[in-house]
Amino acid sequence: MSNTLRTVYGAIEAGGAKFVCGVGTGPEDLQSVRIPTTSPDETVAAAVAWLRQYEVRAVGIGSFGPVDLDHESATYGHITRTPKTGWRNFDLAGAVGRALGVRVGFNTDVNAAAIAESRWGAGRGVADFLYVTVGSGIGGGAFVSGRLLHGAAHPEMGHIRIPHDWVRDPYAGACPFHGDCLEGLASGPAIEGRWHCRAADLPDDHPAWALEAHYLAHGLANFACTLSPARILLGGGVMRRQHLYHTIRRNLPDILKEYVAAPDVGPPGLGDRAGVLGALALAEQGLSENAP
Amino acid sequence: MSNTLRTVYGAIEAGGAKFVCGVGTGPEDLQSVRIPTTSPDETVAAAVAWLRQYEVRAVGIGSFGPVDLDHESATYGHITRTPKTGWRNFDLAGAVGRALGVRVGFNTDVNAAAIAESRWGAGRGVADFLYVTVGSGIGGGAFVSGRLLHGAAHPEMGHIRIPHDWVRDPYAGACPFHGDCLEGLASGPAIEGRWHCRAADLPDDHPAWALEAHYLAHGLANFACTLSPARILLGGGVMRRQHLYHTIRRNLPDILKEYVAAPDVGPPGLGDRAGVLGALALAEQGLSENAP
Repeated sequence: MSNTLRTVYGAIEAGGAKFVCGVGTGPEDLQSVRIPTTSPDETVAAAVAWLRQYEVRAVGIGSFGPVDLDHESATYGHITRTPKTGWRNFDLAGAVGRALGVRVGFNTDVNAAAIAESRWGAGRGVADFLYVTVGSGIGGGAFVSGRLLHGAAHPEMGHIRIPHDWVRDPYAGACPFHGDCLEGLASGPAIEGRWHCRAADLPDDHPAWALEAHYLAHGLANFACTLSPARILLGGGVMRRQHLYHTIRRNLPDILKEYVAAPDVGPPGLGDRAGVLGALALAEQGLSENAP
Repeated sequence: MSNTLRTVYGAIEAGGAKFVCGVGTGPEDLQSVRIPTTSPDETVAAAVAWLRQYEVRAVGIGSFGPVDLDHESATYGHITRTPKTGWRNFDLAGAVGRALGVRVGFNTDVNAAAIAESRWGAGRGVADFLYVTVGSGIGGGAFVSGRLLHGAAHPEMGHIRIPHDWVRDPYAGACPFHGDCLEGLASGPAIEGRWHCRAADLPDDHPAWALEAHYLAHGLANFACTLSPARILLGGGVMRRQHLYHTIRRNLPDILKEYVAAPDVGPPGLGDRAGVLGALALAEQGLSENAP
């Protein structure tokens, strides 16, 4: 039996370290593959070659960024101001769409994940929630009154500034643009830069994790004050440390006080498949060319 | 000619220091009066007595908060966790509605102002913008894709945390809940508490203003990263210092870097009438009982 007999969507979760490509129709019907992110030409060629095996009706891409989401813009579908060599100003949506000859739905990786969580995951039935990833970077996608928050460009939630306790933590921050923004203080690379050790190798009782929860809770508190979400879904590689959820939940009311109710904080319902499943949903939207 | 021959809406901008009451239909047709905020009984009685002179079809209230905006809640229309004596858990919408016998539209003061700016002011035609007031407190209302951001409760944008430079500024902050949140560092009372001088009496070349612009720019940068607005309208008593707009505009790109485009920053199109005009719009919405 050939895969080409089924009508499926193609998906690309384009990350700075890997591309996750998928085909299928949803969480119960998804095949996927991981491709290391190298140069745009090489990585896109590998992704396209894999997707060509299937008769996909459309492709969705959830991409690292910043990206251009303005349909009126000449650079719609491009990755824009990334520090990642070779990818700056690369027309990712265009390259994939031309190679496969199908329509492309395009958005940020975190917006894609938020769409998937809203449709199939822990955001189902929640009008106001955020999906926040903490991994090689920090980013967030928001649903407001049941609809994806687009904004004038797209949010860059990881780059908010939070209090940085220089006495407790003299680390200058890992963000090449902002130094000690939230991403600069609490992403995976920030943990590694501060402690000179891969985050995955730090034991659960290492002081790194109390500081990590402290910073993340400050970030979530700011999002809570600004967007008033009922729920915040925290995903990404750093959040594989399950105890972080507990510590963040404990820290949040200490920061917000009784003035602002703390949102629910928990893992994404779709785990680490939220991004690629969101890209699948973007493919479907790309066909209808309607924003969520 | 009697005022009662016209069909008009009533409006109350309920502030911690004063109530601004209005009647009319919009910016070209608005009469208003100011009533000092004392006890709930006294202040509401005065507001109601003034509004009774007119045959208002409905009343809108934009209130200081936090407030309960949940229509399903038993305390809908109440002011909730305010530190303001006497007003905690006061049923403001109920008291006004019962006294006047008309429908009441109810929201936060800053959401009301954002609605007015969207309809008649500097938010017209701008799908994504914020109204932020800097006065006795700091608060914000947001439009997202042309609709008011409600959230699970309502935003409390003034209470985000930003970096506090303790060396440059050892002032602990004025917020009774959070100390050095944005409101605690940059509201009118924060300026007075830090410099032991009324903000209005500080000369334009006083170092207070550079610090004020620094903090406000950090707050706006966080809002920009989280909501991606095209424009931020800054109102409130502190913003009467016109030079602040210039300094904030200059500071913003230094904080956001080229990574995130700085939103336009300017004054509200309706000046200090945004709040009461927003309450007028809430009256109209209250009649139709549809959220914006």
